[in-house]
Amino acid sequence: MAFRVALRRSYGSPGLVSQLSSSSSRGRVCVSPVLIAQRNQSSSPKIKVDFDQNTGVAVMHMQSPPVNSLSLDFLTELCISLEKLEMDKGCRGLIVTSSLPKVFSAGLDILEMYGKSPERCGEFWKAVQEMWLKFYSSNMVTIAAINGSSPAGGCLLSLTCDYRIMADNPRYSIGLNETLLGIVAPFWFKDTLLNTVGHRNTEIALQLGLLYKPSDALKIGLVDQLVPEDQLLATATQTMSKWLAIPEHARQITKSMMRKPTIDKLRSSREADVQNFVSFITKESIQKSLRAYMEMLRQKKA
Amino acid sequence: MAFRVALRRSYGSPGLVSQLSSSSSRGRVCVSPVLIAQRNQSSSPKIKVDFDQNTGVAVMHMQSPPVNSLSLDFLTELCISLEKLEMDKGCRGLIVTSSLPKVFSAGLDILEMYGKSPERCGEFWKAVQEMWLKFYSSNMVTIAAINGSSPAGGCLLSLTCDYRIMADNPRYSIGLNETLLGIVAPFWFKDTLLNTVGHRNTEIALQLGLLYKPSDALKIGLVDQLVPEDQLLATATQTMSKWLAIPEHARQITKSMMRKPTIDKLRSSREADVQNFVSFITKESIQKSLRAYMEMLRQKKA
Amino acid sequence: MAFRVALRRSYGSPGLVSQLSSSSSRGRVCVSPVLIAQRNQSSSPKIKVDFDQNTGVAVMHMQSPPVNSLSLDFLTELCISLEKLEMDKGCRGLIVTSSLPKVFSAGLDILEMYGKSPERCGEFWKAVQEMWLKFYSSNMVTIAAINGSSPAGGCLLSLTCDYRIMADNPRYSIGLNETLLGIVAPFWFKDTLLNTVGHRNTEIALQLGLLYKPSDALKIGLVDQLVPEDQLLATATQTMSKWLAIPEHARQITKSMMRKPTIDKLRSSREADVQNFVSFITKESIQKSLRAYMEMLRQKKA
Repeated sequence: MAFRVALRRSYGSPGLVSQLSSSSSRGRVCVSPVLIAQRNQSSSPKIKVDFDQNTGVAVMHMQSPPVNSLSLDFLTELCISLEKLEMDKGCRGLIVTSSLPKVFSAGLDILEMYGKSPERCGEFWKAVQEMWLKFYSSNMVTIAAINGSSPAGGCLLSLTCDYRIMADNPRYSIGLNETLLGIVAPFWFKDTLLNTVGHRNTEIALQLGLLYKPSDALKIGLVDQLVPEDQLLATATQTMSKWLAIPEHARQITKSMMRKPTIDKLRSSREADVQNFVSFITKESIQKSLRAYMEMLRQKKA
Repeated sequence: MAFRVALRRSYGSPGLVSQLSSSSSRGRVCVSPVLIAQRNQSSSPKIKVDFDQNTGVAVMHMQSPPVNSLSLDFLTELCISLEKLEMDKGCRGLIVTSSLPKVFSAGLDILEMYGKSPERCGEFWKAVQEMWLKFYSSNMVTIAAINGSSPAGGCLLSLTCDYRIMADNPRYSIGLNETLLGIVAPFWFKDTLLNTVGHRNTEIALQLGLLYKPSDALKIGLVDQLVPEDQLLATATQTMSKWLAIPEHARQITKSMMRKPTIDKLRSSREADVQNFVSFITKESIQKSLRAYMEMLRQKKA
Repeated sequence: MAFRVALRRSYGSPGLVSQLSSSSSRGRVCVSPVLIAQRNQSSSPKIKVDFDQNTGVAVMHMQSPPVNSLSLDFLTELCISLEKLEMDKGCRGLIVTSSLPKVFSAGLDILEMYGKSPERCGEFWKAVQEMWLKFYSSNMVTIAAINGSSPAGGCLLSLTCDYRIMADNPRYSIGLNETLLGIVAPFWFKDTLLNTVGHRNTEIALQLGLLYKPSDALKIGLVDQLVPEDQLLATATQTMSKWLAIPEHARQITKSMMRKPTIDKLRSSREADVQNFVSFITKESIQKSLRAYMEMLRQKKA
C-alpha cells in the first residue's frame, strides 16, 4: 500500500480519490493555530491556519498533498483546528480553502476503507462523523473558498459551511459522487445536500453520482457564487465581513434552529451509523470494487 | 354506463377522464411479458411489453383505448407486468410510454368511482395504492416517456419514475388536477409531487388543480427534459444507458434512502387511507359532481 | 414613550419598526366589518373592510399610521376582522392591503416588546401567534396585495396568504429581517418561510436578515407576481376570481393538507413558545439593543 494515487481531474471522472495516509503520527495533541502555523515549516501539519485578530477571521489552508484526502489523520487535525478556533472568543469567522493546486479536497481517503480491520474502519468513520458534526454546527460564520475540484467528502466539507464561493474554472467539479465507486452516501450526507439543493436535485445527484461544473453547481444552488480564481479569497473576505456585521447571538441561534434537526438525527444514531458503515465497507464485493478502482487509478498514472 | 368519454385535450380543461372499464375479465393470472406481447394480437391486453435482453431494458406500452384510463383492470395489469420485470434479474431498466395518440394516461377511471359499492371502491383504491407503491419503490431504473397529456393519475404514474422526458408539444399538458373535479389528491400523491417540485409549487399546483404545458412543467421541475415527439423513445433509451452505467447496488440503496420515508408513510396507513377515500367518494355531493362532470364530457363529445 | 418613530424606507435598512401604540382603547369588542367600515370616519379603527357581496370578496385595508405596526391592539383587530369574515358564509375570498403610502406593514411593534412586564409581553406574543394561526389556516382564499415595504411581521402576514402580489417599486422591500435587530424569528416564522422559498433560501434569508427588493423577492419565490402599483388591486381581484372558480371544498381540504403539519407544530407548543419569547425579550441585553435601535431611529428622524 505504498503507492500514491493522483487526483484525476477530468470532468466526469470519479473523484473520491485516496492517498496513502503516509506514516505520520496520529498523535492528537492539542496544537494551537499559531503553533500549527509555525510547524508548517516542517512537512508534518496538514493544515495551516492564518488568524487575523483585527478582523476576527481565520483562514484554514488545507495542505495535505497530493489531493487533501480526508484520512483519519487529516480529519483529526481538521477537528482540532476547528475546536481551537471555536474556543477563541476573538475568532468569529472561518474561511476554508486549499493550498494545493486544482483541488479543494478529493474526499474520504480510500486507503482508510480498503484492507482495514473493522475496528479501524469504525474509528475512521467516527472521525468523518465528528468532522461533519463540528463544522455543520459551528458557531462561527464559515465560508468555503473552493479553489479546485471537490468530490465526495470534499463536497461534504464545503456543504457544512454557511456559504460557498467557487473558482469559475470549468475544469473543476463538485458533487457527492459516491455511487460511482459503488459506495452509498450515508443519510446525513444526503440530508446536508437536501438542505442545500432540495429533494429532487438530491435524488438525481446522488443516484447518478453527479460531478457538476461550477456553472451547473451554481444553477442548482450547490455553490452560491462563482468568481475568477484569483479573486476567490478577496471575495470570501468581503462576504465574511457582511456576515460578521449581523448581530452575532441572533445569527447563531438562527443557524442552530435551521440545522439542529439534521444534526440531532446523526447524534442520536452515531453508533448505528458506524456499524452500518463498517458492515457495508468490509463486504468482499465492496472491497473488490475499491481495489479495482485504485488499480485503475494507478494504471492511469503509470 | 355503456358510453365512452373521450379525452378533452385542450389546455386547461380538466383531464381526470374516464372510460368504461368494458367487460374485460379481471382475472389476475400471472402473465409473462412475453405472453403479454403475444397476446397483443388479441384485443385483450392493455399493456405491451418489449424487453430487450441485450440491453436489459423493457419498454411498457400502455394501450388501453381511448385514453389509458387507470381502471381496476388496467392497474392490475400494470402491477403484474411490473412484478414480472422486477423478478427478471436480466431486466434493469423500464421505460413507460403510451401506444395511443396524444395521451399518456388520462388518470384514474371515473367510472370506478361512480355508482359503485363501497367494497368495490375500496378494491379500486387498493389497486391505486399498489400501483404507486410498486412503481415508486421499483429497484429498476424507471423512465417516463410522456408522449401525450398526463393529468391526475397519469401524472402520478410518471412521478413515480426516476426521470421524466416529455414530448415538446404545447397541446399536451400534465399535472395533478384532482381539485378541478371536486376531488382531493391524497397525501401520498401530494408527497410525491412535493418530492419533485417542492412545497410552494405543490401548494399552488394542487389547490388550483393546474395542468402545465410542457414548457411550464419543465420550469418547475415537474418533468426533467423536453424533446420533439419523434425523438422521445430514442432519448429515453440514451438516458437509460447513462443510468444503467451506475453501479447498480449503490444506486438502488440510494434510491431507497430517498423514497423510503414517503413510502413508509402510506404503508403504515393503507387501510385508513382506503377508508378515507371510500367515505369521501361515496358522498352524495361528490357523486353528484362526478355525474355532472361525465355528463359535460358526453355532451361535448356529442 | 410618547414618541413616534417613522418607517425608514431606504432599501437595506432594518424594517422592524415600531410606533407607540398610542392610547387607543384595547377593548376587544366584536365589531362587524360593516361597523368597522362606518367607524372609519373616526380615527379609531385600524382596519377598513370592504366586502362585496356579489363577488364574495372582502378587501382588508390596514390603516394604522404611520406604518401599520402590529401592536397588540392592531393584532386583536386583525383577528376579529378575520373571524367575522370567516363566519360569513358569503365571504369566500380576502385581499389584504395597506391604506398607508409606501408601507404594507412595518411588522411587530417594538414598543410592545420594550420596557414591558413579562405578563404583557406574553399577552402580546399570544396575539402574534393567534394572528398567524388564524390567517395561515383560513378557509378563505387569501391574497396579499403588497403595496409597500413589508419587513419582519409584515412579511410574515403576507406569507400566511395563498398568493402574494407586490408593487414593482424598487424602493420597497420585503423579508424576515429580525436578526438585524438582534431578535430571532421563531420556528413558526421559519417554517412559514421554508414552506415558501425552501430550506437554503431560508437559511440565508434568516441568518442575514435579508430585505429583498421586489425583483429579488420574485426570483426566490418570496412573492408570486409583480405589477405596477396602480394595477395591484385590479390584479389581485382578477387572481381571486381564478381561485374562487375552483371547487371550494376540495381546495380547502387541499390547503389544510399542505399547512396542517406546520400549524399543528405551533398549536402543540404555544405555551412553551410564549415562555421562550418572554424570557428572551426581557433579557437586559436584548432590551438594551432595542433601546439603541429606537434611539437610532429617533435621531434619524430629528
